[in-house]
Amino acid sequence: MFSTTTNPTPNITLYTSATPNSFKISIALEELALPYTARAVNLTTQEQKEPWLLEYNPNGRLPTLTDHDTRVFESGAILLYLVQKYDPEGRISYKPEETPGYTEMLSWLMWQMGGLGPMQGQAHHFTAFAPVRSSWGIERYTTETRRLYDVLNTRLTESPFLAGDRFTIADIATYSWVRASPNLLDFQLGEWPAIQRWHDGIAGREAVQRALKVPGSSITEDQFAEIVREKRRVLMGWVEADVR
Amino acid sequence: MFSTTTNPTPNITLYTSATPNSFKISIALEELALPYTARAVNLTTQEQKEPWLLEYNPNGRLPTLTDHDTRVFESGAILLYLVQKYDPEGRISYKPEETPGYTEMLSWLMWQMGGLGPMQGQAHHFTAFAPVRSSWGIERYTTETRRLYDVLNTRLTESPFLAGDRFTIADIATYSWVRASPNLLDFQLGEWPAIQRWHDGIAGREAVQRALKVPGSSITEDQFAEIVREKRRVLMGWVEADVR
Repeated sequence: MFSTTTNPTPNITLYTSATPNSFKISIALEELALPYTARAVNLTTQEQKEPWLLEYNPNGRLPTLTDHDTRVFESGAILLYLVQKYDPEGRISYKPEETPGYTEMLSWLMWQMGGLGPMQGQAHHFTAFAPVRSSWGIERYTTETRRLYDVLNTRLTESPFLAGDRFTIADIATYSWVRASPNLLDFQLGEWPAIQRWHDGIAGREAVQRALKVPGSSITEDQFAEIVREKRRVLMGWVEADVR
Repeated sequence: MFSTTTNPTPNITLYTSATPNSFKISIALEELALPYTARAVNLTTQEQKEPWLLEYNPNGRLPTLTDHDTRVFESGAILLYLVQKYDPEGRISYKPEETPGYTEMLSWLMWQMGGLGPMQGQAHHFTAFAPVRSSWGIERYTTETRRLYDVLNTRLTESPFLAGDRFTIADIATYSWVRASPNLLDFQLGEWPAIQRWHDGIAGREAVQRALKVPGSSITEDQFAEIVREKRRVLMGWVEADVR
């Protein structure tokens, strides 16, 4: 199904939606100034579960990417693939021989993939999307997310970017989630001064601004934020009912 | 603090405990036949939060690894580091020019790091460790974990290992979590025949058997399993109390 042909020039299609994980990839593609086709996938009709898309991502999630006849899924894998293949100059990555930038980049990227993303995602769920109000779920995941923001703030106090002096895919991955927290969790980034400084610097990058306009949703981000706010008003009004 | 010196011979210390994420690294080290020192960290006294260890992993979790004056944290990052530096022959990895093995390895490794690990971890929490019984928490995470096992089974039906014909770090990462599910979630692996076949093959590898004996806990795995079973008996007996 996927041959072993190697192609020097990209032929990239990004299957995407207006979510933190998908924005990571449009940011990386814009930063690397790579040509690509963005194909918006309709999450409300579960298009990501259709057989033709499961061929590219058997897990039925977004983003996923194809390049010629190669598939890559999971945002962290796509980021590593893109810089390994298309970033020989180290515009948004460190190379293995660049120590400690390379190991810090890998470590913080994985910290985002295995920690910040899943835990903040669960916080989003319990504070805005769950069909029940679970005070334990809310407490567990907002507390863990805040702990992770503390770790992030400490790192960004000692280093301009996560991996060192250079803006890398570790920053791209983490920024994509941090930028959602004021809307979804009512976080005030000013509480973490180093995060605020780092966030604002990334938000001002031209490539990032272009990437956040890549189509991928049938509703705007503002409309989405309003839906979340309304859902949360309802959920927070429910009686607490966990057994302790 | 961490210099840019590159060293051709390993000088590895693994800070470890008897957990799925730590076992990934002892398995990889044993498979690569690398010399290393295993330093058991006492989770019950929160030793992983002590300042000297936060220097190696600012997130305060295990595993973490040092090699000469380089630190690497997060199990997925450590696996990528080890094969990039110490697996030129591709014993447990594919190289970037090996397509599609390399992209499949990256994708499935990230699927484990961002999906199977965090979601199965939350299932463990709600079914065995939470201070409350939350029927929504139990349902949400066991359902998602079972969905992920279905995805895994489908992949292993079409391919001997996750990335292709070769046993790689993607298998190591995933196996370390799958092997915990009969004890912690009462999963019967026979329900997923391809997972059972793959699991048994990996469990029989000599390096894996050595790795699972690396010290890291003050109690044995059998003792731990009994504690979990008792805790779950209590938790499952509690009245359901989520608001729907």
